[in-house]
Amino acid sequence: MTTVAFIGLGAMGYRMAAHLPKHFDQVLVWNRNFEKAKQHATEFGTQAVSLEQAVQADIIFSCLPTSQDIIHLIQPLQIKSGSIWVDCTSGVPDAARELEALLKQRNIAFLDAPVSGQTIGAENATLTFMVGGSEAAFNQALPAMQAMGKLIKHVGASGAGFAVKAVNNMMMAVHLCAAAEGFTTLKAHGVNLTEALDCINASSGKSGVTENVLPQRVLNRKFPLTFALPLLAKDTGIAVDLIRQAKLSAPVIGLTQSLIQAANDTSEPDSDFSAAVKMYELWSNITLE
Amino acid sequence: MTTVAFIGLGAMGYRMAAHLPKHFDQVLVWNRNFEKAKQHATEFGTQAVSLEQAVQADIIFSCLPTSQDIIHLIQPLQIKSGSIWVDCTSGVPDAARELEALLKQRNIAFLDAPVSGQTIGAENATLTFMVGGSEAAFNQALPAMQAMGKLIKHVGASGAGFAVKAVNNMMMAVHLCAAAEGFTTLKAHGVNLTEALDCINASSGKSGVTENVLPQRVLNRKFPLTFALPLLAKDTGIAVDLIRQAKLSAPVIGLTQSLIQAANDTSEPDSDFSAAVKMYELWSNITLE
Amino acid sequence: MTTVAFIGLGAMGYRMAAHLPKHFDQVLVWNRNFEKAKQHATEFGTQAVSLEQAVQADIIFSCLPTSQDIIHLIQPLQIKSGSIWVDCTSGVPDAARELEALLKQRNIAFLDAPVSGQTIGAENATLTFMVGGSEAAFNQALPAMQAMGKLIKHVGASGAGFAVKAVNNMMMAVHLCAAAEGFTTLKAHGVNLTEALDCINASSGKSGVTENVLPQRVLNRKFPLTFALPLLAKDTGIAVDLIRQAKLSAPVIGLTQSLIQAANDTSEPDSDFSAAVKMYELWSNITLE
Amino acid sequence: MTTVAFIGLGAMGYRMAAHLPKHFDQVLVWNRNFEKAKQHATEFGTQAVSLEQAVQADIIFSCLPTSQDIIHLIQPLQIKSGSIWVDCTSGVPDAARELEALLKQRNIAFLDAPVSGQTIGAENATLTFMVGGSEAAFNQALPAMQAMGKLIKHVGASGAGFAVKAVNNMMMAVHLCAAAEGFTTLKAHGVNLTEALDCINASSGKSGVTENVLPQRVLNRKFPLTFALPLLAKDTGIAVDLIRQAKLSAPVIGLTQSLIQAANDTSEPDSDFSAAVKMYELWSNITLE
Repeated sequence: MTTVAFIGLGAMGYRMAAHLPKHFDQVLVWNRNFEKAKQHATEFGTQAVSLEQAVQADIIFSCLPTSQDIIHLIQPLQIKSGSIWVDCTSGVPDAARELEALLKQRNIAFLDAPVSGQTIGAENATLTFMVGGSEAAFNQALPAMQAMGKLIKHVGASGAGFAVKAVNNMMMAVHLCAAAEGFTTLKAHGVNLTEALDCINASSGKSGVTENVLPQRVLNRKFPLTFALPLLAKDTGIAVDLIRQAKLSAPVIGLTQSLIQAANDTSEPDSDFSAAVKMYELWSNITLE
Repeated sequence: MTTVAFIGLGAMGYRMAAHLPKHFDQVLVWNRNFEKAKQHATEFGTQAVSLEQAVQADIIFSCLPTSQDIIHLIQPLQIKSGSIWVDCTSGVPDAARELEALLKQRNIAFLDAPVSGQTIGAENATLTFMVGGSEAAFNQALPAMQAMGKLIKHVGASGAGFAVKAVNNMMMAVHLCAAAEGFTTLKAHGVNLTEALDCINASSGKSGVTENVLPQRVLNRKFPLTFALPLLAKDTGIAVDLIRQAKLSAPVIGLTQSLIQAANDTSEPDSDFSAAVKMYELWSNITLE
Repeated sequence: MTTVAFIGLGAMGYRMAAHLPKHFDQVLVWNRNFEKAKQHATEFGTQAVSLEQAVQADIIFSCLPTSQDIIHLIQPLQIKSGSIWVDCTSGVPDAARELEALLKQRNIAFLDAPVSGQTIGAENATLTFMVGGSEAAFNQALPAMQAMGKLIKHVGASGAGFAVKAVNNMMMAVHLCAAAEGFTTLKAHGVNLTEALDCINASSGKSGVTENVLPQRVLNRKFPLTFALPLLAKDTGIAVDLIRQAKLSAPVIGLTQSLIQAANDTSEPDSDFSAAVKMYELWSNITLE
Repeated sequence: MTTVAFIGLGAMGYRMAAHLPKHFDQVLVWNRNFEKAKQHATEFGTQAVSLEQAVQADIIFSCLPTSQDIIHLIQPLQIKSGSIWVDCTSGVPDAARELEALLKQRNIAFLDAPVSGQTIGAENATLTFMVGGSEAAFNQALPAMQAMGKLIKHVGASGAGFAVKAVNNMMMAVHLCAAAEGFTTLKAHGVNLTEALDCINASSGKSGVTENVLPQRVLNRKFPLTFALPLLAKDTGIAVDLIRQAKLSAPVIGLTQSLIQAANDTSEPDSDFSAAVKMYELWSNITLE
């Protein structure tokens, strides 16, 4: 019988862990604010346990804000030998390799397995998992990931999952800047933005940003805080570091990182990533609505 | 009875005009290489006529390479008073306004009505029309556009259609550069590109480029010539001119235009727009496959 | 005997025209606010005359804010046949070619002859003249330009002078952005900026900006208004238009134009060009002092 | 009596160490290829000694290709307690801090003291030293640095010297790109480049690049190899890393690093840094001559 644990019951983790009891008999949960763990147990039939107990599971999921948090958490722990640690944080590839090496010495496998799909995908178990690490560990952890996700992909060795997530978010940031620039231009020329958006979403210039972010967050002026702008700034930074490490030339990505950084530096507290467009609105004195 | 004409039977126009006889009793076609017009008449039941006769129709469509071609064509013609000229060229907004003013004096309406959807959309009558000009002319020409397209949008006054098309293609160019930069980075870090692409296409970083261009043109190394790189360079230039006219700041678009220009300057003859990624491949010594 | 006129007695023109009476017997001046012309006559021994009289001189200098102002001024005037019009405005190359063609029909030569050196150079007759137009006209106007400048260069055909001035100012704008970015970086790392500036000014990274603008305008927090930021935005726009016309790829210049535009859009009224660094200071929360 | 050593007799070090015997009685030199050290002793009256002996001097200079080389060299050595190590490599600020901390434990001071002025400056003892580290160590090492340089500046704590050098070279790279873009634009418009250069060098758009690099390396088509393009790519990378560490937004610097990287990736072996302009020449089909 496989025991599964979930560490870190934030907006994503809380919803993800809720699906595990449907597929596994024993599901342990832990959270720094332990009330949340107890609430999860009551609500979904998991067991709220101490951190030391949680890491005796066969498969241990984690979902924390940054790789640094995971490193601090793992270092002092006595984790079960033979287990697999699946880290769903949007983390740093170098940290994945560091943790994999560290845990290997203790006979524990490490997978970097960040997810996409936001809280709605966590709620509906339709997340995408992009996974780096050994194929053997991937295959062993696959059923547990399938309990929470729809598309589960092994994208390469340790760190590859974090790399794909960082590049995905970086590309989204580029698309966001392109959309902000393109739509302020159209509005400056008197174009009806709603009609233009419909055209572009039926054409070659569409993106996840034009299909989802513009209509649901920007043009309706809601900018709901579901993915904070500082986190996008962090993720674009990870992408730029990957480029530097490989000594590549990526001018559009580099410029976009600068712009997201500047937008973040001048944004209001608790801004959603979509509020980056407000920097362009300030520049142009045009409101995207 | 409404008479319709189609001028310019290129890869797009030939397929577009083929749908008109299903909805209109009299459909006139003209092409500089007149053999093509005669072939069209035989194949689809249109009438191959002289240019002078064609412009006696009630609704006249045109589809030529550039706005300059349309201006040269229209200036000396005696066009039917009360008719509507619908130009499907991917043209310049200023040219639309110039032609609208010129034709208004002769009691002819002008619509800038570029299309997207490529030859397959033309073949299946599923094109998107993004239309600028007067609402009255738009409504009159609507049935004829509906014969060839699926989504027909009135996006604003004269020039607005061309503006939306230029911005759409510009955004696509940005997405192409982002994808080229992001995927060379992933490959440099040993990531499996096919699996990564599946993840991104299920995530926030997706775009028309990642959904269509990467799998169908780049990763399979086919780069089929359906939309020439010089035309993309032209369209991105139109977008940059719109930005300059409005005195806006659009750094990502500006940079992308420079890169597409450089890619075009160093590309092989008859390159598809997707071959712009080869500049990045040359820089990084990485092949996207 | 050669008669010389000077039209437009702004901060530059007033000082420039003051040198002409030392070398020419008859110097006519005109200014829209005519009191200024009369004051100039009293102060420097020139003659304040009507615009119609001024354009009967053999060599006519002009110095107005933009090429558009010159075009409006010249079109209705009856200018002396055989004269040379020397325009010292920081203008648009296309306008130079247009004016040269227009005046040629009336047997008048046109030189685009923008200057650099600021008011101090105008005062000391040490300006640099970068001159476009025919060599014959250049040679005829040379003594009059030498009365006001030190380095007088014939850089090419009509428009070449304006092009060199626009590119000079564009390069200065790039150097300004580079300095703002470089020095905020150094300050973020605890470096002493004054000492660092001394080092850089003795090294390969120096520029007119590091030698003059940083110490005299930025680090002392004076930002004296001698060359307005909107004018720099205008000049960088001219440079970008030159690039577009030639279908070149100039990514650093293009990006800098976007940044200067954004800095101008968000600046206080009456900002000196050097205040563009404040956009970087806002982004980084670092003051360059 | 102060003993001085110089480690690393490359193009710079060989010339720098030659000045020390004029000011110090005992000057020790060491070089990996030891013949060069013996030649130096013969030529300038220094003493060629083993590495172990060299590091018994009171002040030890080093000048190697990269910080990594210095770290490998220093780690196993028994260096004299109470001595000062002055590293003239164009190194990495983090490495300076690492070495300072390491050597402090052994009671040795470390100064990062990169130089500018090229081989001609080394020959004439007119180098600029930009020095990071403790003030006490700076003051003690000052006379020895003055023997080889003209402008010796203490710019901040450990790492500050390397930071200033990296930013200096980064700014130079920006100026190089600006010049390449500006001058291809001027040539495309038929401007005489030599005359234009004279104008710009007398105006606000001048830089070390327009004053020295363009006339002495580019326009004469010599591109003499004195500072290799890969080293400039390395230095611009150090500057970009400084920006990332401080989470700043520096779009022009970031873009320039991408372009220098691309130019380096596509350059011929043994290219001088000035050959980066050839990328622009390839794009534009224009030769800067």
